[in-house]
Amino acid sequence: MMTLAMKAATETAAMATDDLALAQRLADAAGAAIRPWFRRPFLVETKADFSPVTAADREAEAVIRRLLDEYRPHDGVIGEEYGDDRPDAARVWVLDPIDGTRAFVAGRPLFGTLIALLEDGKPVLGIIDQCIIGDRWLAGPGQPTLFNGQRCHVRRCPQLAEARIGTTSPHAFPEADFAAFERARGAVGDTLYGGDCHNYGLVAAGHLDAVVEAGLKLHDWAALVPIVTGAGGVMSDWQGQPLDMARSDGRVIAAGDAAVAAAIAAALAD
Amino acid sequence: MMTLAMKAATETAAMATDDLALAQRLADAAGAAIRPWFRRPFLVETKADFSPVTAADREAEAVIRRLLDEYRPHDGVIGEEYGDDRPDAARVWVLDPIDGTRAFVAGRPLFGTLIALLEDGKPVLGIIDQCIIGDRWLAGPGQPTLFNGQRCHVRRCPQLAEARIGTTSPHAFPEADFAAFERARGAVGDTLYGGDCHNYGLVAAGHLDAVVEAGLKLHDWAALVPIVTGAGGVMSDWQGQPLDMARSDGRVIAAGDAAVAAAIAAALAD
Repeated sequence: MMTLAMKAATETAAMATDDLALAQRLADAAGAAIRPWFRRPFLVETKADFSPVTAADREAEAVIRRLLDEYRPHDGVIGEEYGDDRPDAARVWVLDPIDGTRAFVAGRPLFGTLIALLEDGKPVLGIIDQCIIGDRWLAGPGQPTLFNGQRCHVRRCPQLAEARIGTTSPHAFPEADFAAFERARGAVGDTLYGGDCHNYGLVAAGHLDAVVEAGLKLHDWAALVPIVTGAGGVMSDWQGQPLDMARSDGRVIAAGDAAVAAAIAAALAD
Repeated sequence: MMTLAMKAATETAAMATDDLALAQRLADAAGAAIRPWFRRPFLVETKADFSPVTAADREAEAVIRRLLDEYRPHDGVIGEEYGDDRPDAARVWVLDPIDGTRAFVAGRPLFGTLIALLEDGKPVLGIIDQCIIGDRWLAGPGQPTLFNGQRCHVRRCPQLAEARIGTTSPHAFPEADFAAFERARGAVGDTLYGGDCHNYGLVAAGHLDAVVEAGLKLHDWAALVPIVTGAGGVMSDWQGQPLDMARSDGRVIAAGDAAVAAAIAAALAD
């Protein structure tokens, strides 16, 4: 006989499984919306912050929102292209249909669709989906990170001087942050440019040791937190504090090894 | 009845077809040698110039050299990992088994195998092969560039301020060159980092307008020349002169639109 507590736990587990299944369905739908535009001539607009936006961004977010309207009508949605619906709901989906639009418009298959679920403001589920080469990272709620269906793990890194880090562009840092980044870069072993959200997946899969970036918005980082932490890594701001929806200033460290994260934070602060 | 001139032309055409077929076989073999190492734990060594080298680099070049020994025993070979054999031969194959080893060791599928054939010191055939995602550019001798089996073309770019350019890393430039690069970067529309040889393929396919780099060795650029020019683009040094095996200083402009190439050369020289 099922007790009330057992029943509640079962329902929560079923809901979580449903959320994971739904999130994958959202990513599938976004990928189907994006693929026809990849490496095809299309109009690139420039937003106020000079980042490009395309019909593919808009169609991918629209198709995700239609599915959420149908299957989670009471949940909130915060999306890069179409703004906020019920952002104060207990459960909020955070969407970036194409993270790395510059790469997308250049025909480089390293952009990604980012989907996160926040519960009470905390990211509990995340997807990074690269719909051209088929790389997908999936984590949460309470589930470890899967890379293409297999558990993945960060790697240990014995010292900062051996760390291989990624960052998308030196120009993504505000000027004061760039000087700090350059200190950290001088202390690590090697720096790989480009990559956008895909770099965080590579940290989760144990192929990169860290990512250091600034200027990230909620839709850029929310999905990454469950993925990096669910693979055994750490994700924080530049002071080493957990990322927080209300307080984050867009400066982010993701690292496979907590000691590397701390050493990077120290180099950034010097 | 076949005249001698017809016969010679037929033989040249057959040889050219054979070279194209062989080059593809070399790329297939290199890909088969590389794929088992991708995203697997492996030893990364650091060369004198601090670039990484892996067993995958060595195995891929060794398998290409074995095939060349078998099928073109009289041709010369210049390879990144195993040096020069008969480099003064009239026909010389130039090999970079993994261009973008940093990307390769980070699990990023944007490195490439570069294979060029030089005749009398001029690149007449080139392949860029990305063996994980299956992007392959193929050009020459005298044949237009194919991207995954289809003819591809550069795009026109009406003005420099609208050009989207790629470059692998800001740290790949010697200090004096970096100041020049920054002038050019300030004059273009947008700059995408990372990408290695794949960026040149994206120029040939009309997705990027230009690539500006320095420090390239013969094995880095030889294969790119037939690919970019065979798609209607231009490839030159920073003075706008054709790249030359004997004279090249490693500074390279690839552009889809000759006017953009000239405008970049002017910005670099300012």
